Amino acid sequence: MSFLWEVLVFSALSAMLALFYSHRTTLWCLKQDRGTEEMKTIGDSIYEGAMAFLKREYQILSVFVLIVSGLLIWINSGPLRLIGLSFAFGAFCSGLSGLIGMRVATQCNTRTAAAARTGLNLALKVAFRGGAVMGISVVGIAIFGFCLLCGILCLRYGTSIETLQNVIVPIISGYALGASSIALFARVGGGIFTKAADVGADLVGKVEMGIPEDSPNNPATIADNVGDNVGDVAGMGADLFESYFDAVLGAMVIGVFMTGTDVFGQLQLTLLPIVICSIGIWVSVGSTFLVYVREDGEPQKALNFGTLTATGLTALLTLPACLFLAPVSFDTHHSNWGIFWASLTGLLAGILIGKIAEYYTGMHTKPTRTIAKACETGAATAIISGLAVGMRSTVLPVLCFIVATLLSYKFAGLYGIAIAAVGMLSTTGIQLAVDAYGPIADNAGGIAEMSGLGHEVRSRTDKLDAVGNTTAAIGKGFAIGSAALTALALFTAFRNSVGLESIDVTKPLTICGLFLGGVTPFLFAALSLEAVGNAAFSMIEEVRRQFRTIPGLLEGKAKADSAKCIDISTRAALREMILPGTLAIFTPVVAVWIGGTELLGGVLAGVTLSGVLMALFMANAGGAWDNAKKMIEGGLHGGKGSAPHAAAVIGDTVGDPLKDTAGPSISILIKVMCVVSLTLAPIFKEWTPLLENWLK
Amino acid sequence: MSFLWEVLVFSALSAMLALFYSHRTTLWCLKQDRGTEEMKTIGDSIYEGAMAFLKREYQILSVFVLIVSGLLIWINSGPLRLIGLSFAFGAFCSGLSGLIGMRVATQCNTRTAAAARTGLNLALKVAFRGGAVMGISVVGIAIFGFCLLCGILCLRYGTSIETLQNVIVPIISGYALGASSIALFARVGGGIFTKAADVGADLVGKVEMGIPEDSPNNPATIADNVGDNVGDVAGMGADLFESYFDAVLGAMVIGVFMTGTDVFGQLQLTLLPIVICSIGIWVSVGSTFLVYVREDGEPQKALNFGTLTATGLTALLTLPACLFLAPVSFDTHHSNWGIFWASLTGLLAGILIGKIAEYYTGMHTKPTRTIAKACETGAATAIISGLAVGMRSTVLPVLCFIVATLLSYKFAGLYGIAIAAVGMLSTTGIQLAVDAYGPIADNAGGIAEMSGLGHEVRSRTDKLDAVGNTTAAIGKGFAIGSAALTALALFTAFRNSVGLESIDVTKPLTICGLFLGGVTPFLFAALSLEAVGNAAFSMIEEVRRQFRTIPGLLEGKAKADSAKCIDISTRAALREMILPGTLAIFTPVVAVWIGGTELLGGVLAGVTLSGVLMALFMANAGGAWDNAKKMIEGGLHGGKGSAPHAAAVIGDTVGDPLKDTAGPSISILIKVMCVVSLTLAPIFKEWTPLLENWLK
Repeated sequence: MSFLWEVLVFSALSAMLALFYSHRTTLWCLKQDRGTEEMKTIGDSIYEGAMAFLKREYQILSVFVLIVSGLLIWINSGPLRLIGLSFAFGAFCSGLSGLIGMRVATQCNTRTAAAARTGLNLALKVAFRGGAVMGISVVGIAIFGFCLLCGILCLRYGTSIETLQNVIVPIISGYALGASSIALFARVGGGIFTKAADVGADLVGKVEMGIPEDSPNNPATIADNVGDNVGDVAGMGADLFESYFDAVLGAMVIGVFMTGTDVFGQLQLTLLPIVICSIGIWVSVGSTFLVYVREDGEPQKALNFGTLTATGLTALLTLPACLFLAPVSFDTHHSNWGIFWASLTGLLAGILIGKIAEYYTGMHTKPTRTIAKACETGAATAIISGLAVGMRSTVLPVLCFIVATLLSYKFAGLYGIAIAAVGMLSTTGIQLAVDAYGPIADNAGGIAEMSGLGHEVRSRTDKLDAVGNTTAAIGKGFAIGSAALTALALFTAFRNSVGLESIDVTKPLTICGLFLGGVTPFLFAALSLEAVGNAAFSMIEEVRRQFRTIPGLLEGKAKADSAKCIDISTRAALREMILPGTLAIFTPVVAVWIGGTELLGGVLAGVTLSGVLMALFMANAGGAWDNAKKMIEGGLHGGKGSAPHAAAVIGDTVGDPLKDTAGPSISILIKVMCVVSLTLAPIFKEWTPLLENWLK
Repeated sequence: MSFLWEVLVFSALSAMLALFYSHRTTLWCLKQDRGTEEMKTIGDSIYEGAMAFLKREYQILSVFVLIVSGLLIWINSGPLRLIGLSFAFGAFCSGLSGLIGMRVATQCNTRTAAAARTGLNLALKVAFRGGAVMGISVVGIAIFGFCLLCGILCLRYGTSIETLQNVIVPIISGYALGASSIALFARVGGGIFTKAADVGADLVGKVEMGIPEDSPNNPATIADNVGDNVGDVAGMGADLFESYFDAVLGAMVIGVFMTGTDVFGQLQLTLLPIVICSIGIWVSVGSTFLVYVREDGEPQKALNFGTLTATGLTALLTLPACLFLAPVSFDTHHSNWGIFWASLTGLLAGILIGKIAEYYTGMHTKPTRTIAKACETGAATAIISGLAVGMRSTVLPVLCFIVATLLSYKFAGLYGIAIAAVGMLSTTGIQLAVDAYGPIADNAGGIAEMSGLGHEVRSRTDKLDAVGNTTAAIGKGFAIGSAALTALALFTAFRNSVGLESIDVTKPLTICGLFLGGVTPFLFAALSLEAVGNAAFSMIEEVRRQFRTIPGLLEGKAKADSAKCIDISTRAALREMILPGTLAIFTPVVAVWIGGTELLGGVLAGVTLSGVLMALFMANAGGAWDNAKKMIEGGLHGGKGSAPHAAAVIGDTVGDPLKDTAGPSISILIKVMCVVSLTLAPIFKEWTPLLENWLK
């Protein structure tokens, strides 16, 4: 059996391990107690609302996938027509992992709340295992889908290096493109849904009516809980699916065209990213068993122990992989040791960027304390101070990124940069498990509140939830950091693919591209903020209407019409996700049509730069406002109900769509534009741009 | 007499015309009535506060100028040591024009209020002529200083093209650097002063105490009015001085090295920008006489008529200048007609970008109406909606900039881009007159309010003030648009100067530079927002203290201690301007020291891109919140005192430091970094960067 088949079989087995683990864990989760009748009813409403949203979203997306698949088949020729099919397959796999993750997450929320009645450890276990199903199945499906696709293509077209270069890898980029497109829509749609519901619930419920968060009397509470699932579980699953696979793709494309080594070396470089990811799967699965907490322990420490062990083990096991499965020398002066160091650089940079995000958005750190203090002089100073923290928080991650780029380049050239991204994302399985744990814990808290469980239970779920906020901030930093490295690898791959010698920003077309790309995240963010604004506006009107027209609702004597609120969020999310999503996918095409690959090169550099900066700014500002509010609620500067608290609530409400809708969508936007360009590069190369002769 | 001397003499004469006009207009202004004793007292406090600030600011800046001059003399060799002196001279000229402008502005505010007692036209005339002194003297001093410097250098070193290339133009870039550095500090310092006072006055006075704006009982009112002068007059004067001269410099540097023409052609291309600016001076001076309004007329129309006539005349007169004073052919395939079209492109793009800013920030336009409506659901939605408007408002100006870049490049190559910037800025004289009119009218309104002039007078000054807000928004858009084009010209000039073949963003060092440059405006904005926050915090404490400890202050029975508030703003502004200013100037030096010119090229591209986007975003978001508040005050959505109004006030307060401190400073930041790089290019070329061998 040749080396290629060995790698594919090993990876497919690793992926199957992941899927088996997910299956068993799902069964374990479903066996847990669902609690009282009331909890079951609430849990069912959340489950049904989330599933209804996903169903309608996937219906719309299937139309989109069909159209784009058709276009891809039409504009390509020869075997590359299969890009249309691999696109659809990628979209399917990404959608499937979102679906699996969300089914389990919406089953585990009630079970976590029920488990919290008996103890902290069981509750943590249920919530974390629910998240783990999501995390592990995402990486499992991504790798399994790849192995299947790659295997079929190799059987059909052979395994020569030319075939890999010109047929198989380009078709696989279609798989990445499909996943990316779905991720973009899922993130934007989910983000709009969750924030419309959240803002609506908070502004009318908490601010106007003065009822507590997650009160069952608030008609938007169920919608808010549904939103946590469709936004932070399904949306994030699709998001990390694409980050993960885009990083692999970037390294494969650079590896398959690598010079300074023999054909077997090229093959090794092409397949190494998949091997590293497979190692990451084994390690991630193993590490999930290490997450354990005592009744008086810290859930944060348990989660940290799991992720840090995973990181260490991955680093350790990557070394033999690099030494035995990578060429001893390539690209004139690089070696397999260099690849290992590059991968390690990525792993460490990922942790560091996450830690920086934690500092800027954490509880009781200097930046959030500054914001909390600024709340004393009112909402205006709270906002100004949060904006300043967000802007300042871009500096250290960017420096980290710069150092990681230079180091990994030093270690293994451009391939090193791509491998750093793979290294950073190799532990996605457990990282995502920790991320997806957040919304489950959040939901559990909501269910405990709504079904009137005791104070002790609520304090346990609060403890779990508080950890979820920190892990969410770390996860976002991590996602943006990996997006930056991945984008870099992808647009270098794009340059090679279209045969551009340089992307020179002193050329007028390229500088125009730079500005065009740079402005895209601003437009994209504006569109998604406006979408949230519009949706929240309808939600606010509806909640006000219900309080006005349903007698006894405020006192809890009548039942709120939650379904109506879910419907409003669903419609708004689905309607408003179309424009930004389409914008992202068609901008590169229009850029090439007008100005050719030189303009597009500038666009990709511009969108990466301004996208990374804006995503960091928005994610961290939002996170910092959130925790500043929590600190005040914890008793600082007057505590709950004081004027500073009101100011902090305003800050938090402003931050919500920034950190949960616009910010995360932008990090996908960057990669979508790069992957579109890379996938269509063979076609773009042939086009004669409108401006070509005009500018001569 | 040779061509060079003819041009210098013509330009010097034009500059002298400008200075003569400023002198005469100043005398006219000083002859106007100063009004009642009370008005005089208030006027004197503002005048003295502003002058005291300027004096202390200039003291600090002289130390800075001395140190940097010394460094420049030390690190350069041969005749280029004179860069140290030209730097100091540029700084002096820039400071002088700020001083002249502010002296007149602080004299005209009371006189405008006094004139408003008799009629609208006289009040407009006084306010506008006060602004015109500023506008015309800025361009006069800039050009006169240049002629003097250039004349002396030519007498000393001769006028051969090699001398121009290697000695005279590099020394002149020192002049631009001096002006830029002062502009940066003046903008940042002035911006912090004005917003600290403004936020302090508003938050305690309007929001907490419920007393009207500009109430004499508010201790921060005088400081607020002083702030309008030091920020919007002195700061803006220095700002446009540098924009204006940087554009000229960019075109000169590209022109003097132009190939495809003879030596005389190169000389013509080098001097043409100065000729176009001289034409702009004549036209600007002439157009100031066209600003006239009837009692029931619209001041906006009067100002528009003045600026549009100036634009048309400049376009008309630039044609013969290009045809007779530019080479018939250069750079293989460009002609003097091409230069004319490029200059016209710049002029039109400037107007268009200004109009777009007007649309996004104007009264009763769609974007501001959206924000006003969002105020109905509270401060959070008001902020979200304003952020979205600000982000969206970046798109059209960037498209405008892209089209202008491509067109001017098509017409006359890289020289065309530089000439477009010169064209855009050629009418700076009248544009700045209109800009500086704003704060004078604003101050006049404040004085009318404080000295208890009648309702009719106040309504006249309000009418003038409302126009000032729109002109300020247009002026800001214009400043950012010209900064983008100028930066482009400057960094192309830099690339030529250091002999880089390309600034290729697929090279790791350059991409790292791109990110390093891109993050600078975020850090810079964060620093200036934090500075405003800190200063405003001290101001709020002080105003609260005075209300608490001075009995009868709120009822107007006791006198507030305004001097103390002015002192707080002054100290804060001077302390906080040091760090961001130093950051801007030393970042390029550190970049080259570490990574060489390849890294620095990326830094310049990055800072231009992210700086332009952030500056547009912040300026327009701030302007839009301001006018949304004004619309509500005009009766929309509940009018003054309603809940939506309170939300709008919060939006406006957030927008203030964005639009008046961080935003405008960033457009200077971009140019400062480019000019530093260009001026030090001959030295940078020789340095061996730390990372050079390491990355190999």
